[in-house]
Amino acid sequence: MKKLVLAYSGGLDTSYCAHWLSKEEGYEVHAVTVNTGGFDTEELEGIRARALELGATDYKAIDAVSTFYEKVVKYLIFGNVLRNNTYPLSVSAERIVQALEIIAYAKSIGATHIAHGSTGAGNDQVRFDLIFQTLAPDIEIITPIRDKKLSREAEIEYLQANGIPYAWEKAKYSINKGLWGTSVGGEETLGSEKALPEHAYPTTANAVEPQEIVLGFEQGELVSLNGESDSPVANIQKLEALAGPYGIGRDIHVGDTIIGIKGRVGFEAAAALITIKAHHLLEKHTLSKWQQFQKEQQASFYGMLLHEGQYLDEVMRNIEAFLTDSQRHVSGEVLVKLLPYRFELQGIRSKNDLMDSKFGSYGEMNKGWSAEEAKGFIKILSNSGRIAQQVHNQ
Amino acid sequence: MKKLVLAYSGGLDTSYCAHWLSKEEGYEVHAVTVNTGGFDTEELEGIRARALELGATDYKAIDAVSTFYEKVVKYLIFGNVLRNNTYPLSVSAERIVQALEIIAYAKSIGATHIAHGSTGAGNDQVRFDLIFQTLAPDIEIITPIRDKKLSREAEIEYLQANGIPYAWEKAKYSINKGLWGTSVGGEETLGSEKALPEHAYPTTANAVEPQEIVLGFEQGELVSLNGESDSPVANIQKLEALAGPYGIGRDIHVGDTIIGIKGRVGFEAAAALITIKAHHLLEKHTLSKWQQFQKEQQASFYGMLLHEGQYLDEVMRNIEAFLTDSQRHVSGEVLVKLLPYRFELQGIRSKNDLMDSKFGSYGEMNKGWSAEEAKGFIKILSNSGRIAQQVHNQ
Amino acid sequence: MKKLVLAYSGGLDTSYCAHWLSKEEGYEVHAVTVNTGGFDTEELEGIRARALELGATDYKAIDAVSTFYEKVVKYLIFGNVLRNNTYPLSVSAERIVQALEIIAYAKSIGATHIAHGSTGAGNDQVRFDLIFQTLAPDIEIITPIRDKKLSREAEIEYLQANGIPYAWEKAKYSINKGLWGTSVGGEETLGSEKALPEHAYPTTANAVEPQEIVLGFEQGELVSLNGESDSPVANIQKLEALAGPYGIGRDIHVGDTIIGIKGRVGFEAAAALITIKAHHLLEKHTLSKWQQFQKEQQASFYGMLLHEGQYLDEVMRNIEAFLTDSQRHVSGEVLVKLLPYRFELQGIRSKNDLMDSKFGSYGEMNKGWSAEEAKGFIKILSNSGRIAQQVHNQ
Amino acid sequence: MKKLVLAYSGGLDTSYCAHWLSKEEGYEVHAVTVNTGGFDTEELEGIRARALELGATDYKAIDAVSTFYEKVVKYLIFGNVLRNNTYPLSVSAERIVQALEIIAYAKSIGATHIAHGSTGAGNDQVRFDLIFQTLAPDIEIITPIRDKKLSREAEIEYLQANGIPYAWEKAKYSINKGLWGTSVGGEETLGSEKALPEHAYPTTANAVEPQEIVLGFEQGELVSLNGESDSPVANIQKLEALAGPYGIGRDIHVGDTIIGIKGRVGFEAAAALITIKAHHLLEKHTLSKWQQFQKEQQASFYGMLLHEGQYLDEVMRNIEAFLTDSQRHVSGEVLVKLLPYRFELQGIRSKNDLMDSKFGSYGEMNKGWSAEEAKGFIKILSNSGRIAQQVHNQ
Repeated sequence: MKKLVLAYSGGLDTSYCAHWLSKEEGYEVHAVTVNTGGFDTEELEGIRARALELGATDYKAIDAVSTFYEKVVKYLIFGNVLRNNTYPLSVSAERIVQALEIIAYAKSIGATHIAHGSTGAGNDQVRFDLIFQTLAPDIEIITPIRDKKLSREAEIEYLQANGIPYAWEKAKYSINKGLWGTSVGGEETLGSEKALPEHAYPTTANAVEPQEIVLGFEQGELVSLNGESDSPVANIQKLEALAGPYGIGRDIHVGDTIIGIKGRVGFEAAAALITIKAHHLLEKHTLSKWQQFQKEQQASFYGMLLHEGQYLDEVMRNIEAFLTDSQRHVSGEVLVKLLPYRFELQGIRSKNDLMDSKFGSYGEMNKGWSAEEAKGFIKILSNSGRIAQQVHNQ
Repeated sequence: MKKLVLAYSGGLDTSYCAHWLSKEEGYEVHAVTVNTGGFDTEELEGIRARALELGATDYKAIDAVSTFYEKVVKYLIFGNVLRNNTYPLSVSAERIVQALEIIAYAKSIGATHIAHGSTGAGNDQVRFDLIFQTLAPDIEIITPIRDKKLSREAEIEYLQANGIPYAWEKAKYSINKGLWGTSVGGEETLGSEKALPEHAYPTTANAVEPQEIVLGFEQGELVSLNGESDSPVANIQKLEALAGPYGIGRDIHVGDTIIGIKGRVGFEAAAALITIKAHHLLEKHTLSKWQQFQKEQQASFYGMLLHEGQYLDEVMRNIEAFLTDSQRHVSGEVLVKLLPYRFELQGIRSKNDLMDSKFGSYGEMNKGWSAEEAKGFIKILSNSGRIAQQVHNQ
Repeated sequence: MKKLVLAYSGGLDTSYCAHWLSKEEGYEVHAVTVNTGGFDTEELEGIRARALELGATDYKAIDAVSTFYEKVVKYLIFGNVLRNNTYPLSVSAERIVQALEIIAYAKSIGATHIAHGSTGAGNDQVRFDLIFQTLAPDIEIITPIRDKKLSREAEIEYLQANGIPYAWEKAKYSINKGLWGTSVGGEETLGSEKALPEHAYPTTANAVEPQEIVLGFEQGELVSLNGESDSPVANIQKLEALAGPYGIGRDIHVGDTIIGIKGRVGFEAAAALITIKAHHLLEKHTLSKWQQFQKEQQASFYGMLLHEGQYLDEVMRNIEAFLTDSQRHVSGEVLVKLLPYRFELQGIRSKNDLMDSKFGSYGEMNKGWSAEEAKGFIKILSNSGRIAQQVHNQ
Repeated sequence: MKKLVLAYSGGLDTSYCAHWLSKEEGYEVHAVTVNTGGFDTEELEGIRARALELGATDYKAIDAVSTFYEKVVKYLIFGNVLRNNTYPLSVSAERIVQALEIIAYAKSIGATHIAHGSTGAGNDQVRFDLIFQTLAPDIEIITPIRDKKLSREAEIEYLQANGIPYAWEKAKYSINKGLWGTSVGGEETLGSEKALPEHAYPTTANAVEPQEIVLGFEQGELVSLNGESDSPVANIQKLEALAGPYGIGRDIHVGDTIIGIKGRVGFEAAAALITIKAHHLLEKHTLSKWQQFQKEQQASFYGMLLHEGQYLDEVMRNIEAFLTDSQRHVSGEVLVKLLPYRFELQGIRSKNDLMDSKFGSYGEMNKGWSAEEAKGFIKILSNSGRIAQQVHNQ
């Protein structure tokens, strides 16, 4: 019997796959959920039960939250990565780690096939397949939804005809939740004109009292929240719990998909947005101009390739080395104020703050150099332009 | 008598210069104010009167708002330029145009000297001197405040001793206003920890009712507001009048000065922020992935050089050619909602919208290609990674 | 009868296509050769005769040499583009223009199909198909060699069985000639270790006497050779005639194909190499540091996308605008010495030469500034580093 | 008595300094030569003797060849750095290490002053001063030649009048030799038109017999020559000994100085050119497309900052981390043929060669994928362009 690992989330598409692949196609289906922060234990128990009921031989929930952080999220913070200056790459980033975990699991149990529920119209198929084919070219990839271009209705009909009587009413908004944010798709995001309505966002925004918090960073990692040290993953989760109810970090990402069409997707990602912006502010105080210049370009490129599923390209490791090295002095505290639907960066405290006024203050009386030195500086700085003007106008 | 053009704003520093240069140093002082959007007619009349009273031979107010837009602001919009991802370069950009106007004026009247009131500790001295020296190396630059390291107190004392009895009480916050935003410096911005208090911002934020507005762009320029066509400059001013009272566009910029120290400055720039973000959203719908990729890098570099006073470097013209060419299809309307202290981009309408659903919708059933084609795409896309994995692990 | 345009070169693959598509598949075959500089009139006459003999309904030779220069080569010179710092993109660049001409011709005669002889293992299939599908998605693309994975032997057998008795002995080296260089593939280029032997290159390298020549540029274009003005295309051809016999411009390009594998190809391109290197030298004398910095990055990217067939991406037009603008002052003469297998750039003469010694000479006594000014310059320039050192070591 | 460290090379300028500073200015002069590969033991003995004779209290020759390689040259190879695509940064790179060694020495002996013989018209003053001021802001920098704008004649006259009777006839060409190349300045390099004559180059080019050699790289470092393992430094020196007599690696660099003027300098750097080009070829076979793309940009920037003396900016460490990480698979042998005044890269052998033909050969029959897959790839790849065409033309 052909051993198959199915990337299983418990939704309609992968439920269809679980049943169809085991019952109709005769695979030995090993259902796997890679949890990158979107599921709690209870949910995972429900998913397990359903998988087995649908015909899976066994089920495994892989806790990949820390892996997700270590392999991807950490670098997104180091790089202040917001795709198109907006989107923290929440889902894109998760898919990478899910694919890595699934392929590792498939190899570990000697599976010959891998299945996933992606359609042929999105990014996820590319992210999954790219990683699967790169790391295990001999494992065959099975994608029933993509191949058969199945509609929701056809899937539901099939499942009901086979005695799987769940209520599959289509949620008005498709939600994908993880450590680094929640994506929200709906009717509005299929067009270009409309914002998502308040109720489309899964978190209820009911916090109204402004609140000041302190994010502690050590070499670019979020090591404490309000003075309490914990793992970066735990701090991100705590920050999300604090800031999410303010409705912070909501926006719509408009981007280029890997397959060349434009796509639009809503998201809420309070912790991601606050962490990145706070981290970025700390960098403005602790990095040189050229570090910031180079980081911006490297990180933007890193985000693009990650988004496009090219995580395994060696250049990603090289950029990670760059980013890691750039964080040596990015330590300190960032003061943030949470307000309904927004946050303010108040300032920072850092022993590495290069804006230390003992070296001279911007626009104030200069202590470190004389007027003559400043004039000499500018004089020499103008050499190239002065020569160009004269040569071009002679 | 040595003819001198003084860049005159009416503030303490340039008032000191006006008096000292004419009375003590014997220059024929021609005071000039280059208005880049910060002064109204009445204010300019007051400035003129004072200049003459202080000893200036004559006074000229140059209206450079349109020039400022055409030479600089336009490209900052095309490039979505926010220095360090925050600051619309309000003041930096003005200084360039002020310097250009002053040097042109100095040449036109045959001046042999130019004076400005900058200190030796800031960016402005560099921006002014660089442009003066490049365009008129034979004109001598005079900078009493920088040279004599004068304190406010010393300046006031001198003026009072000379019968200039203005009330020079130091404003708690130094404000610089122009078409592209208002900068705000104060005690808080001298350190790293504190935000500016509400009252530091010159605009009173008292608008509370959300308001939906429509920005119309044509080839990247803001040609209409709420359906009413006008010049981009007028539209920016109207937008500021609409959005300013919401307290939108306030933040603190932390950046690297040209002279190598870090500086921190607050600003409010509602129109600039809204215009740039709306324009950027329209670009996400109308430009290719690679256009956005290249624009981001070009524009960030453009902003850096502009900030550093290198406006006259030929590379700036080359990048402007790039940016202008990139705007061919950036036309359409952007729907924006104004709320207290923030705004939401709702969506766009454009005949050039590349997210036209008739070519296939992201994640939905694909119309334009088959599952087999998608699989072929990914297969070939994985070639390089698959080969690398096999070579490195053999 | 289905009207089909066949990109026809007269070689075995396209000869097979001509016969098979007209005789077996029943297409009305319109054979077209787009000449980008590789064929003379006599050769084209022979190609025409053969096409008709093989069954083509008609034949057209399109002279695209000037188009090739105007649309592509000009920008490769402006950008000093050498792919991977080696290859002038000779063939890659031609394919683009050939595809553009073929699709325009197909549309003009109302063809419903286009055929070409590319295999499924190279770049050319991508370059052709990308442009065809972008500009004419309704025209069907037919690629018999790719689809049927035909071997040379099978093709020859088919043609002979059908009474086409040409001698199709395989040339030891496959040669592709055009205005911008000649590519050479052979047994050696299939592996990584060996250079091409002397006899693999079509031009006989028998010139031994060194020769000094003068290239005249006007705004980046090669407008004269040895003082004689002519069109850039004619000058490139004359330069090739002069320099080719020295064996100049031979090398092997190792690059990444669009389909993800590495490829290796030899080339000789004397005129391309000399023109680019001479142009680059002239730029070093006439452009600012930042122009050169930005140009290098833009041009490298331009070369990559051109190589990959992405000529129609709008970003290419934007970069062309940048490059064109950058050439304003790139005028003057470059002195080049031709020697067997190499050339030396002797120097330049230009009214725009920024190395005009009246502004001070490198390392010599400085005329334009004082020691104090130089020291002030360096003092301020060291501010950021000095602060960083002190902050990090305190 | 004020303790002063003098960067001493034994030439006229620093000889003048040695005497003048000790005899006229009363410093306790500690003369130091930092050898980055330009001096042999005998030469250093002569330099020592002269220094002491001129009045130096003591003399120290610091052997910094390995340091030079480890801190700088290694990364120039990793990055294939040729400034302006020509110059291996021979002298620029040396100055950095010399400055670092001198400041370390000055601190170790408790010196309060440092002197060097740079003029005010070149790059070296900036490189030295920047590093000195950054690492030891409290040590005062003394530069007699710059300050007094001394001519050669005045220096000679002074020395002769003080009984230092050396023959200081000006060499026709000023030569600066080090591990990474020799710079050559002369009358020709002061203008733009002329090449250096053969006799200006210190190495006699008398090798005529072609010679094939093998360079062995391990993670980007040159670990063997012709199969014989040795340290990278020793291999570079051996390679220079082999290749120098062919007159390989000669050219003229035209570049932008740090002080804004253009400069021109000749050089010969056989080992540097061959090593870089061989290393680059190996990378083409062993790195991904994107690694090469990013490396090119990072390395070009690294070269620019190094050239400009900004070695201590933290971004340089970050880029070094990137470059080091990128070399993981850059191992193998490169086959090079030496000929008079040029060399040919024949090919490479590497276990990491990504051009392994078992995965499919460029342009040949494809083994790894089908025609359908290739067509699917191109179809999806054309999506964005096809949509853009249709939207823009509708």
